[in-house]
Amino acid sequence: MVSRPEHSRSSELVECVPNFSEGTRQDVMDAITSAAESARGAWVLDRHADAVHNRMVLTMAGPPGPIAEAAFRATARAAELIDLNAHQGVHPRIGATDVVPFVPLGATRMQLCVELAVRVGRRIAAELDVPVYLYGEAARTAERRRLPDLRRGEYERLRALLPSDPRLAPDFGPLHVGPAGATAVGARPPLIAYNVTLGTGDLAIARAIARSIRESSGGLPAVQARGFRTADPNVVQVSMNLLDARRSPLALVFERISDEAARHGVAVLHSELVGMAPAEAIADVAREALRFGRLDADAILETRLLEQVLGAGA
Amino acid sequence: MVSRPEHSRSSELVECVPNFSEGTRQDVMDAITSAAESARGAWVLDRHADAVHNRMVLTMAGPPGPIAEAAFRATARAAELIDLNAHQGVHPRIGATDVVPFVPLGATRMQLCVELAVRVGRRIAAELDVPVYLYGEAARTAERRRLPDLRRGEYERLRALLPSDPRLAPDFGPLHVGPAGATAVGARPPLIAYNVTLGTGDLAIARAIARSIRESSGGLPAVQARGFRTADPNVVQVSMNLLDARRSPLALVFERISDEAARHGVAVLHSELVGMAPAEAIADVAREALRFGRLDADAILETRLLEQVLGAGA
Repeated sequence: MVSRPEHSRSSELVECVPNFSEGTRQDVMDAITSAAESARGAWVLDRHADAVHNRMVLTMAGPPGPIAEAAFRATARAAELIDLNAHQGVHPRIGATDVVPFVPLGATRMQLCVELAVRVGRRIAAELDVPVYLYGEAARTAERRRLPDLRRGEYERLRALLPSDPRLAPDFGPLHVGPAGATAVGARPPLIAYNVTLGTGDLAIARAIARSIRESSGGLPAVQARGFRTADPNVVQVSMNLLDARRSPLALVFERISDEAARHGVAVLHSELVGMAPAEAIADVAREALRFGRLDADAILETRLLEQVLGAGA
Repeated sequence: MVSRPEHSRSSELVECVPNFSEGTRQDVMDAITSAAESARGAWVLDRHADAVHNRMVLTMAGPPGPIAEAAFRATARAAELIDLNAHQGVHPRIGATDVVPFVPLGATRMQLCVELAVRVGRRIAAELDVPVYLYGEAARTAERRRLPDLRRGEYERLRALLPSDPRLAPDFGPLHVGPAGATAVGARPPLIAYNVTLGTGDLAIARAIARSIRESSGGLPAVQARGFRTADPNVVQVSMNLLDARRSPLALVFERISDEAARHGVAVLHSELVGMAPAEAIADVAREALRFGRLDADAILETRLLEQVLGAGA
């Protein structure tokens, strides 16, 4: 008997997933996390550190203002505590805070996240004297859209060449780097890390399927994929980043992999999310599976409650 | 790169869907809604009124304490403003506040909702002098589990017979009813209202399919189903209440209806949720469709954020 009325969207919700160049020193990671958590109205949902990458990733979410504040505070603390001249790790990086992506959740507009990136980028440059490069949807030139392009040569290249090479001039901030390096600040769609496990030990099959579905080999748009062995010698995995689940939804990726696996005579055993996915991406799977005429994340009770709670100024 | 760590569940979440015997007088409905909203920390997500039923349903959610308070305050206000002696409507009812169900969301335990029902039921009886019947999972006898059994003869029967018939004795409260009548307070799993639309104008087919899937005709457990015409003469609908989506999940119901429709040579055009569904039920659909090894509502970013926000004492 309960109906679903139109309701005013009381709050826009933004995810932010900053990456910091510290994956071993617990006190430094704690201090950066605490700085993010000190911004009232934003929440740190997840923290992942990797010693080999020597890198920490925070997953935060909240309304635009608080999330911008949390991102800035964490970046400021990292700039105080991390010296890139003493940093080594297998993951390429340009700064103490290497990258700060803002991600729209639910019905939040990408443009809002672009504006946040510009605002926070300016503030990082002005208050921390750190060069800032706008990337992703916030990039001002095609060459700066992709992080791998921005990270070419890493911190060490910027230290050597930034003062003299005008092509390296940042969007905001000084023409030189200090020990905190530079930071890429941008906006992007939600990224979903997604693995599909195959009932074979043959790595070549996982690699062939990965090749057939990733964008760079002519597969699905905004999909990165690689084949991997697992701890179990009898199964291999196709491991993916879905860079834009609106263009290549989970259900489509799963269906395509199932078809390819069938062509190889191999079973799909199961699949898994690594970390979290936005409600919209999960609702999308249900929308497809049950042929929902309409089903948005707002039909999920917890999402509606979250909007109410945040809209109430929590 | 982001992992999903174990985390402590900081807050238990409860839905409450009280039904009030007033569907026309706007000022009365507003006053009851305001009373519910006055309980800090609980949120009214939806309000639906029907003049023919002469009935209003609120969908509320929040942590246990606030939701219990919201339920009590709304019940108290309804007792002041509604006189059952002057109430008429096609929906059977026993009181100004006819029924107060508590519903566990996410990983919340049913037992918690049973305890809430007992606590709120006692308070309604003690402070409002209203007879209270515990029903659903909170029922103390098999005869009181189902609402239709409790509502037999409605308010008018209680008014006539409660003082003299010991079988009608309430679980809490007096052996007589006043103008506010009596209230059923209980606990139940989330109820999902779900419709599937078929590509035929033949009502007999919708009715046959409804018969084949509803529990009362030997179909799926905890499924109520009926066939209906729609505004479009070329399509009919199977309209359902899923009383326990853990026992009969959305995906299973959809699959069974699709199979039955195929047997009748009819297409399933689409399906729809009426109102909201818990994240767990939507995650379940994705779990089935993508063969997720594990996927709980906590993998949905918004659900995790909600837990954090409420856990922070918002």
